[in-house]
Parts: sequence; C-alpha cells; structure tokens
Amino acid sequence: MSTALRIGLAGLGTVGAGVVALLDANAALIERRADRRIAVVAVSARDRARARGVDLARFEWIDDAGGLPARDDVDVVVELIGGADGPALTLARATLAAGKPFVTANKAMLAHHGLELATLAEAHAVPLKYEAAVAGGIPVVKGLREGAAANRLERIYGILNGTCNYILSRMEAERLSFAAVLADAQTLGFAESDPSFDIDGVDAAHKLSILAAVAFGARIDFAGVAAEGIRRVELADIDYASALGFRIRLVGLASADDGAMFQRVHPCLVPFAHPLAHVDGALNAVVAEGNFVGRLLFQGRGAGAGPTASAVVADLIDIARGEVGPAFAMPTARLQPLPPADASAQVGRCYIRLTVADRIGVLAELTRELGDAGVSIESLIQRGTASDGEVYVVMVTHSTVHGRVAAALAKIAASASVTAPPLMLHILDF
Amino acid sequence: MSTALRIGLAGLGTVGAGVVALLDANAALIERRADRRIAVVAVSARDRARARGVDLARFEWIDDAGGLPARDDVDVVVELIGGADGPALTLARATLAAGKPFVTANKAMLAHHGLELATLAEAHAVPLKYEAAVAGGIPVVKGLREGAAANRLERIYGILNGTCNYILSRMEAERLSFAAVLADAQTLGFAESDPSFDIDGVDAAHKLSILAAVAFGARIDFAGVAAEGIRRVELADIDYASALGFRIRLVGLASADDGAMFQRVHPCLVPFAHPLAHVDGALNAVVAEGNFVGRLLFQGRGAGAGPTASAVVADLIDIARGEVGPAFAMPTARLQPLPPADASAQVGRCYIRLTVADRIGVLAELTRELGDAGVSIESLIQRGTASDGEVYVVMVTHSTVHGRVAAALAKIAASASVTAPPLMLHILDF
Repeated sequence: MSTALRIGLAGLGTVGAGVVALLDANAALIERRADRRIAVVAVSARDRARARGVDLARFEWIDDAGGLPARDDVDVVVELIGGADGPALTLARATLAAGKPFVTANKAMLAHHGLELATLAEAHAVPLKYEAAVAGGIPVVKGLREGAAANRLERIYGILNGTCNYILSRMEAERLSFAAVLADAQTLGFAESDPSFDIDGVDAAHKLSILAAVAFGARIDFAGVAAEGIRRVELADIDYASALGFRIRLVGLASADDGAMFQRVHPCLVPFAHPLAHVDGALNAVVAEGNFVGRLLFQGRGAGAGPTASAVVADLIDIARGEVGPAFAMPTARLQPLPPADASAQVGRCYIRLTVADRIGVLAELTRELGDAGVSIESLIQRGTASDGEVYVVMVTHSTVHGRVAAALAKIAASASVTAPPLMLHILDF
Repeated sequence: MSTALRIGLAGLGTVGAGVVALLDANAALIERRADRRIAVVAVSARDRARARGVDLARFEWIDDAGGLPARDDVDVVVELIGGADGPALTLARATLAAGKPFVTANKAMLAHHGLELATLAEAHAVPLKYEAAVAGGIPVVKGLREGAAANRLERIYGILNGTCNYILSRMEAERLSFAAVLADAQTLGFAESDPSFDIDGVDAAHKLSILAAVAFGARIDFAGVAAEGIRRVELADIDYASALGFRIRLVGLASADDGAMFQRVHPCLVPFAHPLAHVDGALNAVVAEGNFVGRLLFQGRGAGAGPTASAVVADLIDIARGEVGPAFAMPTARLQPLPPADASAQVGRCYIRLTVADRIGVLAELTRELGDAGVSIESLIQRGTASDGEVYVVMVTHSTVHGRVAAALAKIAASASVTAPPLMLHILDF
C-alpha cells in the first residue's frame, strides 16, 4: 500500500468540520477504496477557540492558511474558506503554483477565476477539483465531465439553489407568502441573514456557469449569466401555476448552439409531469441532455455538511487513486470562448401576471398589445375582483420568441390600466 | 497530442453499430475531451453481410473476434457480443491476459465472472470497464464507484429493467392486462420474443449484483440475488395499489449490514411521493443512500443504441485520459465475501392480494391467520363480488418481519377458502 495522502484543510466552518467528521467515520472504508489512507495533517481557520464538534487537537494548527501549500507534510490543500477573492484565491494560486492538487467547494471563486486556476493547474500538471462547488453531494461535475463525456450536450438545467427551492416548496405546501417563509427559513438557519445571494439567483448563477463550462467545453463566463431570483414570486403565482398544471421552481438553464452560449437563472413554470416538479425542499437536481444518451437526471441534497463533505472527499479519493484530468473536462486551450447568446431570441411559452385596474376594456387593451407584438395567448385566468379595485390577469402564451413578450410587456407596463410591474416567467417545455 | 486510442470492436448489433455511429458523430468533441482521437480500427461480428446503417468498410474485418487482443494495432477491445460465457468470456480473458483494457456492456458475464475478470485485470494493471452493463446511459457505476466513494452506502435500489417498467407503466396508463402489453411490446420490439430474461427479473438481478459489488465493496454474488418478476402482477393489483397511494415497479434492492448482503429483485409498491414512482416507460433509475451524502438519484434511459453507446464511449474516454482504477471500486483483495442476508428477517410493510371464495367467515379466517403470525393489518380492501363466486381481498400490513407474512401466507394458501396462490409484494418505505 502507498503512504497516506496528507491533507491541509483551510476553513473549518460547517463543511470543514464535516470533512473531518467524514474522514474519521469512514476512514477504513476510504482506505479500502482509495488503496491508501487519507489523513488531515494541518488545519487553518480564523477562530481557533470555536467549538466545532470534531477533535482538532491531533492536527497542526496553522494561523495563516497561506502557509499550507509550502508545507512538506501537505500533499493536497482543501479550501473551504469561501469568497470569490481574498484568502481563498491566494491559497488556490499558491497551492497550484507549488504543484500540489487543490480541492475546493468555492463556487464564487471558480465562477470568477475558474479559467485562470484551471490554466495554472494544467501548467503544473496537478488536479483542480471542485465537485462540492455545484449541487452539494450530487456528483454532477463528474457526471458531466466523465459520465456524459461521449455526448454533445445540448442543454443542461436544474434546481441549483436549495434555499430558493425550500422557500418555493414551503410557500406551496403551507400556503404562505414569500416573506413569511423567508423569515422562518432565516430563523431555522436555512437562509442567511442577508439572503440576497441565494434568493436573487447569484449562487445558482455561479453554479450554472461552472456546469456550462464543463458541459459545453466553454470558457467559464459568469458575467454571461442572466440571473433573476424569486423575490417577485407570490403565493398567487404558485396557485395560478398549479391551476394551469405547473409548479414554480428557480431553474438555472444553459444551452450552447451556433457558437454562442445561453445561460439564465430564472423562476420557471415546470409541468407536473417533469421530474424537476417533484424536487422539493432543499434538494437539488440537474438535467443534462446529450445527443446520444438523451436526458440524464442527477438528484440529491444540494447543501449541508454531510453532502458537501461527501463531494470534497470524493475528489480526494480520485486524487488518491491517481486520477488527474483537466478541470473543465478538456485542456484549457481547447475550451471555446463562447459569447452570450441573444436572450430575446430564445423561444418558449411564457407565464404573464398583470396587475390591472378592474374596469371595462382593460383586457381588450392588454391582449391587443400582445397580439400586435405577435404573441398569441394559450390560456387566460381572471378571477374575482380585489377589494381595492385591482385584479390579477394571468396568461400563458403559445410558444413564441421571448423578445416579443418583453417588448409587449414594456408597452403594457406603461399603460395607465396596469398598476404594478408585470411579472413574466418562462415555462420549462422540454 | 498523443496518438489515437485504437479500438477493436467485437459485436455489431444495435449497440455495436451505435458505438460506431457515436464515434463518427461526436469525433471532434471526443478528441477535445479525451485529448486524443478514439478510432475503431478492427471489427468482428457473426454476419459480415448484414446492413447496419454505418460504414464498416473502412475497418479491418475480423471473422474471429478472438483475434482482436493480439493485434498490434488494437489498444482496447470493446465487447458487445453478449452472453455470460462463450466467445464473450473467451475474449475478455484473452484481452486482459494480453494486458489490454477491456470495455463491455455484458451484465450477464460480469454477474457470473466479474470477480475473475477483475482479478485478471488487476494482475495485468489494465482497466476493466462496464458502465454500459448497468442502466444503459446512466453513469451509475461511476456515480457509485467514484461520486459516492466517500460514503458507507447503506442501501441501493432502483428500476433496472426498462422492459418491465414499460410494461407496468403501460398497464397502468392504458388499463391493459400484462399479457396484452407484453404481446404489443414484443410486436414493437421493446420485448424479446423470449421475454423471460426481462420479465422474470434475471436481467435486473444481473445488474443489481454488479451495483451491489461496487456499492458495498463486496465480491459479486449473483447467486445470492432473490429474483421475482412481474408475471403475476395484474391490472387489479395496479388499481388496488393506486387506490392505496402507490405505483407498482420492479425494484432491485440491495443492502449490506452486519457482515451480510441482501439482494432482491421484486415488484414493489412505491409511494406516489417517491421519485421512483415517477420513472415511467423504458427509463431506469438508481437510488443510493450514503451515510454522509444522503439519498442520491440517477435517472435516464436504461437501454437502446444511443444511451448504451454513450456509456461505452464514456469508458473509452476514461481510458484515453489515462484513468485506471479497480473494476469494483477497490482492489479485489479488499472486496469482502459477504454471505446472503436472511430474506425472511427483512422488515417492512407488505401488500397481499388473496383470491378467496365469497362466503361468510372467510375474512375472519384470513385475518386470524395473519394475527396469529403476529402480522397486523393497516388497511384492507374487499370490493364487490366476482360472478364466479371468487373475490379479491387486498391488504396492506403494518411494518413487520417479512418471514411472518410468508409463514402466514403459506398457511392461508392451504386453506380451502383460498382459490388461487396469494400474491405478496413489498412496499418501498424509504
């Protein structure tokens, strides 16, 4: 048997402590699978005194994580500090430049600096691995990079943010408002005190940009992701969607075609029959569509200490087994710089919710605007009358070019009959 | 760039032709991902004249596949002949003994000879890869072997046979009998003219034994799989199950605990809320439960030329990238010889369908037998009366030791009141 693979671990929050706990609990099994021990030797975090529920006294404590890469007794650095820049990025650069493998769960850093880091890893012929950065414990980076590698992937999409899915699921199941569920989720620790990263779609956009790079062999392009969160989704929308045969989910979607890449995070209406409609609570799921394999679905827990640690240690086992491959599924020189596709040229059905004054002629005005833009309406719901004289009009369009809907809604929003900004959601029709 | 990885391909049925078609269609992409070309150089099949929809004239034709391993221009042999023994096994042994990587979709051969072949591969330090042998295009072998490698896997289960799932789905959707759907499936080519391999659960058992070996680090034990097919499932059972909140699926299930391994293929009642209840038609799905990652689900197309070719070529890309690991997730010397667990000691709810004479006192007799065996009944349905004086009594038990149910049913089957063998199905309660 080989000698142990010796780990320097930077960051001892929930996930860092989870990695230590996992390596303890499954040590014998991991040794059988990796054919060598995987042993933490040195750890680093901001606060040495904090109780973490795992015994850290047996490891060397390093105040400055930046000292880990240079240590002779560290073979691999695991970064669980977080943050797109700062100490995490410094550590990544130093580790790879020192010719040592680097494992991270840091989606923000990869979204912003993934290409630079992959290039550096390649130059030093060491692995840069990040399974834990996307969809927690689900081995979807491996699934796309290796499992689906024989396919031209035409589209990937999925539920990439557990907080948003938890909020939308609970709104639906318990008939609560967005604000009420968010507040409760914050109390329970399922949402951050500043939740904007999650609920505005930024976290999902980070993950989507990583998946898209792997799936399409593209240079990662976080700036090219159009991200919209779930703040504007109301319980009424969930009810209307349900009446029409849909559930609302925050979906990250990417496709590549004609030398351009489309990336969007957006609340979508998902038909009841679609597997993503059954992904509830804090689960994540990713669908990949390949030209030979067809539709693949990967589903599991998208966050939390256990699942994330599972992904981090899977990367370590790969490294222990000697697996060294390109970070984004192909050598960086072969990654294509794909410009963002025109979002307005995307095609599909749309859900539109308008808040209008309850008076004669309004419906005719709205439908005329849509008709003038070339958008035809598949179904329309107008129910009752609100006490304040406002009413919701909800429509589902036939499949159309999204830009037409946007143009019509820009005009409609300016109408005196419309008393609040329109809400438009896309329908997941594949 | 390295030189091409040169393939000798044995077997040119649907899947073999699919591999050729895939390597043609996605050649440029595969070269980017693998950093080298993957090129078929020699092919072998029984009938040279048969039209296969792909151009084979550019390849060397070999009448005897056994000649492939010794060829200097063949780096890897791909076996798509099928059959547990015979030419496929001869070819596998010869290829590995020649120190060349071997890729196969042959679940029967692996179920019967997997340990021998893995040992041979290890002795010659070459990969034995078989992603296509289980669940078609779904990268589930990789998912368990690598993606979930950090976990003690406690249980794996799934829908592993597309033919059975197609039949059960259509019986439910179109309200047809088993015989009617089977006959139609045979006409359409979705079922073999001799369907016993599929519908008696043998094919699913082959696949389950492979997954269990990978998941639990166990020596493969096909003989230890208790397999029961779907011949006895009637439309009435599907209706009763539906009324009780379940769908019927053929589920392969394996668990390892206390130094023993439990493996069973059996039609199960799956609660509507469970993801497997939404796996319809010819899809496959596999669930793995790990002690850190929780529940992982992999879903996709379980058969067909495209998906199976996708899995075969994924293995080739792994080989081209230099990935060489143990066939069953750990060196064969570390695989445990786990004896079969006692099936009667398994615990869970059961569905029981009895065909009884429609006369006074029968229900009391049946429930007394179950009660005497310590089995308590959660729900019971008896509807109407059949014209022939027979009636179905359907029960769901509370969670109990399966052996108790079996013992009670053995007595009940012998009763004069019971006019046909009882049907017992397990309920998937996790």
